[in-house]
Amino acid sequence: MKIRIRVLPTGRDLELKAGANLRTSLIEAGIALDSPCGGQGTCLKCKVQVSGISHKFTELEEEKLTAEELHNGWRLACQTTVEEAGEVCLPEMEVSRAKASFSLLGEEISVQPNACRKHFELSEPVIGDQRADWDRLAEYLEISEPAPVEAELPLLREISERLREWNFRGEAVMVGDTVTALDPPESAEGVLGLALDIGTTTLAAGLVDLETGKVVAIDAELNPQIAFGADVISRIVYTRDSREKREELQRELIKGLNRLLLRVCRLAGRERERIFEATVVGNTTMLHSLLGLDALHIALAPYVGVLNQSLSIPAGELGLQIHPRGRVHILPAIASFVGADTVAVILAARLYQTSVPKLAVDIGTNGEVVLATRDKILTASTAAGPAFEGGRIKFGMRAIKGAISSFQATPSFSYTVIGSSMPRGICGSGLMELVAELFRAGVIDRKGRMLLSSETGSSLAAGLAQRVRVQGEGREFVIFKDKETEITLTQQDVRELQLAKGAIRAGIELLVKEANIKTTDIQEVLLAGVFGNYINREKAVMLGLLPQFPLEKIHFIGNGAMDGALRALINLEERRRADEISGRVHHVELSGRPDFEETFLRCLELGA
Amino acid sequence: MKIRIRVLPTGRDLELKAGANLRTSLIEAGIALDSPCGGQGTCLKCKVQVSGISHKFTELEEEKLTAEELHNGWRLACQTTVEEAGEVCLPEMEVSRAKASFSLLGEEISVQPNACRKHFELSEPVIGDQRADWDRLAEYLEISEPAPVEAELPLLREISERLREWNFRGEAVMVGDTVTALDPPESAEGVLGLALDIGTTTLAAGLVDLETGKVVAIDAELNPQIAFGADVISRIVYTRDSREKREELQRELIKGLNRLLLRVCRLAGRERERIFEATVVGNTTMLHSLLGLDALHIALAPYVGVLNQSLSIPAGELGLQIHPRGRVHILPAIASFVGADTVAVILAARLYQTSVPKLAVDIGTNGEVVLATRDKILTASTAAGPAFEGGRIKFGMRAIKGAISSFQATPSFSYTVIGSSMPRGICGSGLMELVAELFRAGVIDRKGRMLLSSETGSSLAAGLAQRVRVQGEGREFVIFKDKETEITLTQQDVRELQLAKGAIRAGIELLVKEANIKTTDIQEVLLAGVFGNYINREKAVMLGLLPQFPLEKIHFIGNGAMDGALRALINLEERRRADEISGRVHHVELSGRPDFEETFLRCLELGA
Repeated sequence: MKIRIRVLPTGRDLELKAGANLRTSLIEAGIALDSPCGGQGTCLKCKVQVSGISHKFTELEEEKLTAEELHNGWRLACQTTVEEAGEVCLPEMEVSRAKASFSLLGEEISVQPNACRKHFELSEPVIGDQRADWDRLAEYLEISEPAPVEAELPLLREISERLREWNFRGEAVMVGDTVTALDPPESAEGVLGLALDIGTTTLAAGLVDLETGKVVAIDAELNPQIAFGADVISRIVYTRDSREKREELQRELIKGLNRLLLRVCRLAGRERERIFEATVVGNTTMLHSLLGLDALHIALAPYVGVLNQSLSIPAGELGLQIHPRGRVHILPAIASFVGADTVAVILAARLYQTSVPKLAVDIGTNGEVVLATRDKILTASTAAGPAFEGGRIKFGMRAIKGAISSFQATPSFSYTVIGSSMPRGICGSGLMELVAELFRAGVIDRKGRMLLSSETGSSLAAGLAQRVRVQGEGREFVIFKDKETEITLTQQDVRELQLAKGAIRAGIELLVKEANIKTTDIQEVLLAGVFGNYINREKAVMLGLLPQFPLEKIHFIGNGAMDGALRALINLEERRRADEISGRVHHVELSGRPDFEETFLRCLELGA
Repeated sequence: MKIRIRVLPTGRDLELKAGANLRTSLIEAGIALDSPCGGQGTCLKCKVQVSGISHKFTELEEEKLTAEELHNGWRLACQTTVEEAGEVCLPEMEVSRAKASFSLLGEEISVQPNACRKHFELSEPVIGDQRADWDRLAEYLEISEPAPVEAELPLLREISERLREWNFRGEAVMVGDTVTALDPPESAEGVLGLALDIGTTTLAAGLVDLETGKVVAIDAELNPQIAFGADVISRIVYTRDSREKREELQRELIKGLNRLLLRVCRLAGRERERIFEATVVGNTTMLHSLLGLDALHIALAPYVGVLNQSLSIPAGELGLQIHPRGRVHILPAIASFVGADTVAVILAARLYQTSVPKLAVDIGTNGEVVLATRDKILTASTAAGPAFEGGRIKFGMRAIKGAISSFQATPSFSYTVIGSSMPRGICGSGLMELVAELFRAGVIDRKGRMLLSSETGSSLAAGLAQRVRVQGEGREFVIFKDKETEITLTQQDVRELQLAKGAIRAGIELLVKEANIKTTDIQEVLLAGVFGNYINREKAVMLGLLPQFPLEKIHFIGNGAMDGALRALINLEERRRADEISGRVHHVELSGRPDFEETFLRCLELGA
């Protein structure tokens, strides 16, 4: 039996099977429902408000939701069985557009793309010159090409008609050595390229006019795979032992990329069939998912994926809706948890040619740390966990409207909310600032323990600590409270942040040790990634996420990964350099080091 | 309304639409009905015997068929409309298997194929060596490979599981630089290659064990495109302006090739998925058809096709049912009417390295002539027409059971019939011998005129000439006659043969002139092609098809084209050489020469 369910705010109607799980049904209908725990009922992110649909709560819902919430129709979609017609109202979900944070770093790069157009004017065939049409064109183009040019069947199937229509003159679109399309002589149609950065959470795309090298549009969108788990491990676990599920995630990702590329084309007023090449960066798991590869062994020791080398394949093989004979070039990765996005950051920030030690940190669920010196590049991956993205934090949320994004404990208690609205939760930067400030003010001690007024050491701390209350077995700090809403920072939230901070800081310490330098030798610290751009440098140092660097040494580099993907799109030399980087980098597997645990435990301490 | 028709001798039942054309319906059902005129009602080759089906004759049938034939149910399928249920009995059609005529020429060639297997034993991943699975395999294989090895997605999708199943040992099947498949360690499965020769009439296939270089099976089959026209021009005309028809012919051809390759695999007891590469030769039009290219401009001055260069494409793109990731390498052609089959003959007969002038002639609808000297290779194409294949000859037929294949006028009147059966018609070699012998005996004069007894110059000729009778406006020579059957050679048949002979001989004369040598300088004459192997050398010289060469200089080289295709399959150096040949050959366009017409007219004379 089919039951009609209206989905709000979109107003879309679905026909769902009676007895079906609501979360699964929504995901199957292509609705990107955030559920990082994969439907286990632990993340509480799939909380939706229903009317009708189902009347029975599960025990888990009774435990996790308040009586008031249940009364008001709040349910966990993963726990809800579709029983009757009704409405489901989804949590607001927006994507923080990467747009603003994009900038091409450093010097202008020269335009030397892999895809370009070449004008041709052929002599017409006569009895004295009977070269075949393709042979004639190929010989013409080979005058200015170092290698033999290649053709594919679809082009050969149309060449004779085109050449005669245009009196043997025209423009050849070449992708590498292959003549991919033919344009009429002096056609005004350009050649476009697309740079893609596939993040676990966010997909970003940059559209480039490959004839000028200019970025003509840039946009981002939520990775639709979020519905299958917030982090790479939960997605790997979801697809384990099932080719169908792997293909399902691949399909969702490619659908998302196709929507995004259509949008950047609309923004720029260009046709997607004019995109002849795409470069792709992303973490190793996302690249595996894009290619439909089994990422299982990324998640199992000794953490070995299928492929880290770069790969160039026809767009048609992936279903990416650029020109059907366009190509997709995937940049190389370094290791299972240090992906092509990190290679792109190294490329963009010119870390491969530094004369002084430089550090780059990409803060996320998986924090990548790069330490470059005059003669080597070291990388490490740190399992920071989802805290910076709001995962496993009671009121955690992404950096969207309603999120507390920065916090000041003194001289006056204040915070800012994205969109200047009522606070709804805490995003990664807000969480970091809360803990840093409460630590500085003495409400949280070095060990991360939240103190009651009576336990604090100053009147200032004691005053602030009045907001700390004991709730069940833990403590929590009340940030905001009115009749309907209450937002708190729990002791457990602080622990989660400590784990994240400790992991990244330990990564930095161990790379410095491995490079045989001192922290003070580091001349520049680059913060990359979407989150890195919202971080407060002073508080990052205060917290001990970063060592005690002078603030003027710390710089934000925006979406360095997108920058690198664009460089590899616009200039072949940069692409070659990316392969060189991935071959040259020395990856340090932290879990394999005897000094890891001791360092990590030490780095858990705040301020350290 | 559907009408049930039984097709004999196969006994297959078809459901045909009422009102449908019988010839078209049979072709659509995949039945290779010979109809060189393409359904115009002129070739009479689609004559079938029906019972039921249709009761009305067309005017054309009444004109072309005898009253007795009509009474006995003989009809032209192209003129017949399906009206009611019944049976249709097809003309007997067999293919003269190329098998017997195959032999690898000259010296043994060394085994150095493009597709081969490499054993690998990888170190297992550990924390200290986290190279990705593919990177690990690629680095291993690159130790012994000059170029970086490549992977395709389907292989990457299975590599992790396979490596772990086999403890990181196994066999990699490589096609060129690409790892195409993985076999378990010490697997006994071989690597096969397939050589294909696509003739206008016949498809031939050779199956090779690429590990030993041995030919393990060879077979041939009728080109199913025969149903759409006997010669290349009628097929080009059929597909003119219609992509659908082009695709239809391509589909039929590939179906035929797939049947054939399945058969050679069965003969050898091997699996078709173990074929990792195919090399293909054929005339230029057939290669265009295989690739689905528009061959229209081959037929229009200045006779320029789409592609003469060699081309290597994935088997999957053609639908050729070898290993799905296997490759198809099409050898280069020379000109629109001098195809890859001629390149293969030049390769097989080592004409590219001769120290003395040598001549090679492939006799067919299109007669290719090659003249190789110490410093150049000249080719010409001659429009011999269909006479040698039985086309436009009143009792012409292919060299199958019932065909008169050789003839002796004196000392006694005698002929041989293929299959020692009652004569049903005359095949190409029979036609040539009939005209040569009647010319020698004086029943046909130098101009090709058939003489009545009274016009002959000897009693012997006068006796033979009693078989010449005047029929309507022409004369004909009665070869065989009983109550039911009569087989004759008409004046018009002689004219057709003269055109064919004149064209080929003119080609030889003009190439000799172009090379600036004398006919007597030629040290060896090679006759290639299926027909070339059945020709009587003495009578070819007698007729003037060939100049007055001493017979010991004339050799048959079997299916030289297949031989060349096999060489290019077994040895990469030979494949490279084929490209070199096609670039080096100087093609002489006869129709462009001022001396062509005069030479051709002179060569029409018999004995000249």
